[in-house]
This record gives sequence, structure tokens and C-alpha cells, in this order.
Amino acid sequence: MSLISIFALGGLHEVGKNMYAVQYADDIIVIDCGNKFPDESLLGIDLIIPDITYLVENKEKIKALVVTHGHEDHIGGIPYFLKKLNVPVYATRFTLGLIELKLKEHKILRETELVEITPSSNLSIGKIAVSFFKVNHSIPDCLGIVFDTPEGRIVHTGDFKFDLTPANNEYSDIHKMAEIGKEGILLLLSESTNAERKGLTPSEQLVGDHVIEAFRKAKRKVIISTFASNINRVQQVVEACEKTGRKLALLGRSMVNVVTVAMERGYLDVPEGMLIDQDEIDSFSPDQVAILCTGSQGEPMAALARLSNGSFRGVEVLAEDTIILAAGPIPGNERGVSKIVDNFFAMGAHVIYGSGSSSGMHVSGHGYQEDLKLMLTLMRPKYFVPIHGEYRMLHHHRLLAESVGVEEGNTFILNNGDVVDIENSVARHTRKIPVGNTYIDGVGTGNVEDIVLRDRKQLSEDGMLVIVVTISKSDHKLISSPDTISRGFVYGENFDELMKDVNYLITRNVKDLLKSNKVSWNAMKSSIRKSVGQHLFQHTRKKPMILPIIIEV
Amino acid sequence: MSLISIFALGGLHEVGKNMYAVQYADDIIVIDCGNKFPDESLLGIDLIIPDITYLVENKEKIKALVVTHGHEDHIGGIPYFLKKLNVPVYATRFTLGLIELKLKEHKILRETELVEITPSSNLSIGKIAVSFFKVNHSIPDCLGIVFDTPEGRIVHTGDFKFDLTPANNEYSDIHKMAEIGKEGILLLLSESTNAERKGLTPSEQLVGDHVIEAFRKAKRKVIISTFASNINRVQQVVEACEKTGRKLALLGRSMVNVVTVAMERGYLDVPEGMLIDQDEIDSFSPDQVAILCTGSQGEPMAALARLSNGSFRGVEVLAEDTIILAAGPIPGNERGVSKIVDNFFAMGAHVIYGSGSSSGMHVSGHGYQEDLKLMLTLMRPKYFVPIHGEYRMLHHHRLLAESVGVEEGNTFILNNGDVVDIENSVARHTRKIPVGNTYIDGVGTGNVEDIVLRDRKQLSEDGMLVIVVTISKSDHKLISSPDTISRGFVYGENFDELMKDVNYLITRNVKDLLKSNKVSWNAMKSSIRKSVGQHLFQHTRKKPMILPIIIEV
Repeated sequence: MSLISIFALGGLHEVGKNMYAVQYADDIIVIDCGNKFPDESLLGIDLIIPDITYLVENKEKIKALVVTHGHEDHIGGIPYFLKKLNVPVYATRFTLGLIELKLKEHKILRETELVEITPSSNLSIGKIAVSFFKVNHSIPDCLGIVFDTPEGRIVHTGDFKFDLTPANNEYSDIHKMAEIGKEGILLLLSESTNAERKGLTPSEQLVGDHVIEAFRKAKRKVIISTFASNINRVQQVVEACEKTGRKLALLGRSMVNVVTVAMERGYLDVPEGMLIDQDEIDSFSPDQVAILCTGSQGEPMAALARLSNGSFRGVEVLAEDTIILAAGPIPGNERGVSKIVDNFFAMGAHVIYGSGSSSGMHVSGHGYQEDLKLMLTLMRPKYFVPIHGEYRMLHHHRLLAESVGVEEGNTFILNNGDVVDIENSVARHTRKIPVGNTYIDGVGTGNVEDIVLRDRKQLSEDGMLVIVVTISKSDHKLISSPDTISRGFVYGENFDELMKDVNYLITRNVKDLLKSNKVSWNAMKSSIRKSVGQHLFQHTRKKPMILPIIIEV
Repeated sequence: MSLISIFALGGLHEVGKNMYAVQYADDIIVIDCGNKFPDESLLGIDLIIPDITYLVENKEKIKALVVTHGHEDHIGGIPYFLKKLNVPVYATRFTLGLIELKLKEHKILRETELVEITPSSNLSIGKIAVSFFKVNHSIPDCLGIVFDTPEGRIVHTGDFKFDLTPANNEYSDIHKMAEIGKEGILLLLSESTNAERKGLTPSEQLVGDHVIEAFRKAKRKVIISTFASNINRVQQVVEACEKTGRKLALLGRSMVNVVTVAMERGYLDVPEGMLIDQDEIDSFSPDQVAILCTGSQGEPMAALARLSNGSFRGVEVLAEDTIILAAGPIPGNERGVSKIVDNFFAMGAHVIYGSGSSSGMHVSGHGYQEDLKLMLTLMRPKYFVPIHGEYRMLHHHRLLAESVGVEEGNTFILNNGDVVDIENSVARHTRKIPVGNTYIDGVGTGNVEDIVLRDRKQLSEDGMLVIVVTISKSDHKLISSPDTISRGFVYGENFDELMKDVNYLITRNVKDLLKSNKVSWNAMKSSIRKSVGQHLFQHTRKKPMILPIIIEV
């Protein structure tokens, strides 16, 4: 008998860059490969993906990448992953559509093996039998995954909630889940996003009713913003258009892309003739038009933000238009969203907004506490690993598990890289594999060194000062006065005065040092940095980066 | 008869930097002078205060600065204001205490005329009679202000809510307000922060009860964080300590400063012997100690954040300690706060947190819709100017005013700088005075030029590249190969290769240009910037700042 090992390369103690792995003997199956968006401290970084060095070092063992669903925090890292590990990718039809968009962009679609699966698929990957069950979430075609090993059954839930009246018949297959968990399972990995929230997630149906009502009340055009991937929400908007006789225009590249994939693959049903181009908007009466757009998180370059400041070419928001934000702001985005709401109010528009489900225009796609308890009850796991969330969410999820019968001590709150090994049906947290963040910075990929980020931070707050000192090779004397160039540093009345002082300071400093014949250029540079730095801080309270350059001629 | 004019220099279409003015004939009275904290886009900026150029130009008319209360968004700009306009400052005893702390720091306490007032004070400032009424808010000793001019009565509410069971007997003087508004007033300026929130603000009493309960339940030490200025909350913590037999330690400079002012001036009643120093904490049993600290907004350098990552020297958080966040996160701070909460959970502490009043540990100091309607009803204004808030809050406040009888068309939603002139009891929005933001950047004050901020942004995202080209004066030839220095730019395997290309490119470029004798150094610099910029963008998708330096020797 061999070990079963479970570990995460991303997704624990964070929301984003989900990536988990199940290993049995020499077969590793990777689950999801997401990205995460950087916070403000990561200046200039575009994306964060899991560091997969460990997987690359175990290349021959990696048998497959299985994808639970098509959200960015589950698929956003796939192109970078595949460039290093060209393994087959298993996903449902809709998820594959979204992955293909990415692979095309990265020009690696052709060399990738994509395998379409359904909730009824049964795969043999190495010594592991893999099967699936349908779950409901805020994007179509989501899966939970069952791994049957000779040592026992492991289940990964994917992202889920239990919505008994979902849009588009995206029902959870509760019967199959019950069947899977009937005899109990060895270990469950279940998502924890809403483990802090009491009760059961509200149904998507509520939102549908509110959208239709808002469309009915709107006297002029309606602009509604949501996540492009929330095809169920898009379907509700289509239905509201149908019921109120409106044409629908799509704004924003990702909205057009994702809706196109959804329509082509049969996940979205749009009546013939309803969709119009953005340049047709003005040819209809305002009460016959709706616009569905990206930017619900306040992203400054997305359609909604541009509409809110009048910079979206060809489409104008007018007084009495109705704006609906059909997605709650993700923590960190509140300020951007509220600025947009404010702009729309100032334009005289009606704005329907609010945090979470308070406006009736949004419900979470992640199960609340009762949803999570239902999953735990259906699966009856011996061992439990809460995944997908910050520490406090994992912590609360553990309490929920214990409340429905998981034995105390049998829940593992892991960190990325922590490995749970199971042998003879006994699980232990044994070892740690190397994990980390890989930053995508322009086209570069890698671990942006701390020093680069530290430099950017200093530059961003205090700017910099380049000091060029020219020294004669022949007689070791300063040739003319030093040149200084500053960028992003202070300004104001006293700036010229300050630079004169600095010049004087450097000249004196360099002359002194040159008297001793043995001074190295490095010593001279650090002496300049120190004396100028002190002077500037004293007079401005700023610490610009000081870059002395010594030219010997 | 003369005009009455009303305008704001800050506080409209924003939350922060409140500053309003009432003018009658040649007398201008300024109300408050606050600051605002910069958002992420203002790289390196410490504070924002109102641009007071207009006031400085009308120096001889400015008769007084009257301050409603001691919150930063009402007093944070005072030192900068006084350095340019040395007028008497009127404020209540506690507010003066906080202002004095600032003036000491800026070394201008001695030359400032501070006048202590009470809610019963009656002042004659120029031709304006000024009186006050007590309002309740989340800091002691708050005022609303009445301006009686020969043309009629103007009222400014300050920040307020109606709490009928406040901490520390900080009751609103409803009887006086009723008296002031009995005959109706000409124009009301009232704060709008919570104009979007239905109902009446919950009472501070609720929080007091919850704090005591949490202290009772806590088995080990309690760490509670709130705004230092929320002396009512501090008093509740003191009471909870008293009821549960705990000593209290204060952490964080502003907590110590403000509590000291409050105790000295009689706004806070702390039993003899309750306060202990932080190095005494360990000499008591954990169930006999509580800690009150700053940092409830997740500020990374404040006490709470440092406790959460183990970097507060001398005080350690241990498993089973109780952490209470007794302040809701201000929009924009959610991410920082949630990181701290997470750290405490990971330490095994009990954490009581939550947004707004959901945890029971916080209530807003700003009145909800019913509070605002009550103020409007008490004052019966003919004209109404909603102040203190984003556009949408002002908008909602107008609707509230109309619902309690302010005539449609009589509410002015102004922007900073918009002036309402009142003549013969008729108000009109007539003109605009110059206003703006003054940035405090280190010790510099002024309008940080856009270009400095733009430079910082570019530096922060893409870093920079300094290129030094040395050219011989005598024969106009390139001396050796160019030097390049990069900071905050890319890294990684291909960096050296890239720099080689850049060097080659510059060398060729400069040699070509030098062939024509007429090339200017500026033309050469811009040619280098262009060719290097294109090359780098093509290969890295980054646009570092390129700084060519030409040295002629």
C-alpha cells in the first residue's frame, strides 16, 4: 500500500490562486490553477500565481490538471502552468471555453491537450479513479471531484452553494453527493469562503425577481454591471430584457468574450435579434435599451468606470437612466466602487447599489454556514481539510465540521505547502513542500525580488535624485560642479535652494575624499548617499532614493 | 443691508478636510479646518488639507476660526492654516486640548490666540453674533453653531447624532435646538455622512453593555482597539475594567496623548490605580489586565497591527486572549483590518470583529436618516445646504429635507467653492471661489504638482533606467560605452542580455547622431529615450522611466 498525500500550492490563508494536489504513489493530480490580484503593496505587479517549482521538480509524477470551474482564481494561472508542465487539462465544456480564450492569448492552444468531461465522466488517472459531481456556484458547469484510491476516497468540493431554485437549472446533484458519502469518505476538502456567515445563501431567484422589477420601473435606459463569468446573472438580465421589450448591448471585452463562449456552447439562451452593437444604442428609444457591462468592482479601465466619468466613447449616461450594480464589492474595492456610484448620482441617474445582498441585486456564489454543514453531512468525512480562504474562515469551518460530527483533532488547518499524508486510513500532517508566490510583472514571470519591490516603494513615495560626479582620471580632481536630476521628489519654493545646498555638500564631500588618494568609488558613493540623504531628510522629511554616478574621464 | 455668503473650502463631495465659511459684509468666520488621508493614487502624500489661497487673499476679512469638535477631519489642517492666517481659534475645552497638542508639535502654540468657549457662550465677531448648542457625537464636547446676522440666522450642525442614552452624559441639547429653530431659520448646514442609512443611529449604551459582557467572558487578557478620540468608548472600557477587576494599559502614542488630555480636562474618569504601564502588564495575572490601543483601522504602524504580527516590543498576544475591534473599518481599510483579524485568529485568540455595528462593539457617531430628519424638523430652515459627504449622501440628505418640509428648489447641493449668496432673504447659488487640495508631503506644503505624482506612479510600477553617455568635448566622440543603472525595473534571467542590447542601441544611436554636428543634447536625449523605451516595452511590456544623462568632457 502507498501513501495518499494532500497539499495546497495556493488558496490557504488567502482568497485566490487556488491550487491543490492529491497524490497517490507516483501519481499527482493537480486541482485548479488560479491567480490572485496583487494588493497595493505589490507595486507594478499584474498578477500572482502559485510558485510551481515543486511540481516542476516532480514533473514525471504530474498526470493531469483537473479544473473545478472557470473563475479566475481557479484558472488564471493555467497558461503559465502549462508552459512549464504540459499535462492534459480536464474540465467541463464551459470551463474549457474560458481556458481556451486564455491559451489562445498565450499562443499555446495548439500544443495543449484539453479533455472535455461531464459530471458523469469516470477517469482513470494513474492508479487513481476520478469521478465528479455537479455543484451550484456563480458560474455554469461547476464540479466537485471524487478521487478513489486503494487507500480510500478523497473528495474536493470545488466552489459551491446549495441553491434549490438556481438560474439556468444549474442544480447541485444532491443525490449523487449522498451516494458518494453514503459509507463516509476518508477525507474532504471543502471551500470556506463564507464560513463566517450564518444561515443559508439566498437563492439566485431573488436576484432575478429584483432585476425584472428594476427593469420594469426604469423609464430610460438601464445599465447593469456584473462579473462577465456570472452567466446565470447574464441570463436573468436577458430575461428582464425580454419581459420589458429591451434590446441588449454588451460593453467590455471580457463581457463580450465570455458571453460569446456561453452562447456558442449552449449555456446562455439569448433570443434572436436581442443583442445590439454599442453604436446601435442611440437608434432605439432609451426605454427600449439595456446595457450589460463589466467593471462592477470599480476597475478604473473597465466599462462601468468609463461610463461613470463620461469617457466611454459612443455611450453616454443621462439623467433618469438606471444603473444597477449586480455584484457586491470584493473587500478592498469599496472605495473605487463608491466613487463610481457617486459619479452616477451626480449625473442624475438612479443608482441601485449596496454591499452584499442588501440591494437585492446580488447573492454570493459561496455557501454560508448551513450550506457548508450540509456538504459535510452529505460527505461524512473522517478527516477534514477546510480550503479556499483566510485563516479565520478555515477556523470557522473547522467549528462547523465539528458541530456536524467530524471528530475533534481530525480537521487539519493547513498552510500552503503543508502535506497531510494518509497511511492505513490514518492522516497526519507530516511535512512541508516549498511553495510561494510567482509574480507576473509585464511579460516577466518569476519571483520579483524583494529588492525590486522595495525600490519601487521608495521611488513611489519619495522619488529619487541622481547625482553625477565627473572626476578627472589624470589628476583625480573634480571636473566642474556635480549634476543632479530629481524625479518624483519634492517641489516647491525652496527646491532650488535645496539643490544648491546639495551641490555644495557633494562638492565639499568629494573634494575631501579625493585628497586621500586611496578612496574607492564605492566609498565615495556611499559617502554621498549618506550626507545628501541626511540633509534632505532633515529639510524635507523625505527619503528619496539617491543614485550617485561617478564618471572618470 | 449686506449679503450673507456661505461656502465650503472642503468637505463637499468628499469625506474629510471639512472647512466651511460664513461671510456677512466684510466679516468671514471660518468653521473647522480638517484634513483628509490620501488614497493609494497619491503616492507619498501624507495628508490633504484645503487650499486656503482665497482666504489668504482676503486676509483682512477673516475674523475667526470656530471649531465644532476635535476629530482630525475638522482640526487636522489647523496648524497649516494658522501659519498663514493667525486668527483667534474658538473651541470647547476638550477640542482645544487636542488642538494644543498639534500646535505644540508645530511649535506655534505660543503665538496662537486660543479662546475657550462653552455651549452657552455668546460671541460678537465683527457684525455677526455667534452662539452654540451642544450636540452628541463620537467625541466629547461637540458643538453646533448659530450665526445671527442682520439678514437672518444661519445654523451649522457640526457632526452629530441624537443619542438619548449617551456615554458620559454627552446629551444633545434638544431644548436649545428647539428654541433656536422655533421661528424657523434662514439657512441650515447639516452633516450628511449617514444620509443613506435608514432609521436612527443605535445608542452608545448598547456598546457599553457588549463591552462589559465581553470582558466578563474573557478568561485571559483583553485587548480592545478604538479611535483614541472616542473618549466615550474609552470611558466604557474603563467601566468594564472596573466591573471585572482589571488593570488597564494604554498602547499607542495618540491613545496616550488623547487620554491624557481627556483626563486632565475632566472628560474621562479613571479610578486611581487602574492605569498601568505597558511593562507592568506581565506582573498581573492575564485575567486582571486589559489593553486599550490604537490601530482599529488596520494602520500598519499602529499598536494593533504590531500586536497582530508579534512586533510590539514587550507585549505578546497569547492563545485564549480576547481581541475586540471597537470601531468599524472606514471604507478602504477593510483589507488591512481583515489581515489583522486573521493574524489574531492564527494566534489562537478570540476575536470580536465585524463591519459597522454587527459585532455590537461599535455604533456610528453620525446620525442616520431619522436623526437627520429630527435636526431638520427642529431647525425649520428655509434654505438647506447638506454638507460633509460624498455627492450621493448630499443627494439623499436633500430628499430627507424635502420629506420634512424644506421646499423643493430650496436645497443647494454645492461643490467646494460654490457660493450661496443671500440677499433680502433670498438665497442664490451665484459664483465660485477658487478651492483645491493642498498636499502635505514630508515637511513640504503646497500643490504637489501633477508631474511629481505622475513620476512617482511611473517609478512605482515600472521603475527606472539611468543612462549616462560621456562625450568628448574636443572631437565630439563617444568616450567608452554608456553606463546604465536600473532600479525597480525588471529582473530575471534575461536582464543582462537586455542591458547589452540597450547599450548597443544607445551606442549606435549616439554615434549616428554625433555624425551630424548640429545635434543638440536635448535631441539626443529624446532620441535615446524613444529608442530604448520602445525596445524595453517590446521585450518586457514595462515602461520604466528613462533618464539619459549626457556628460561632456
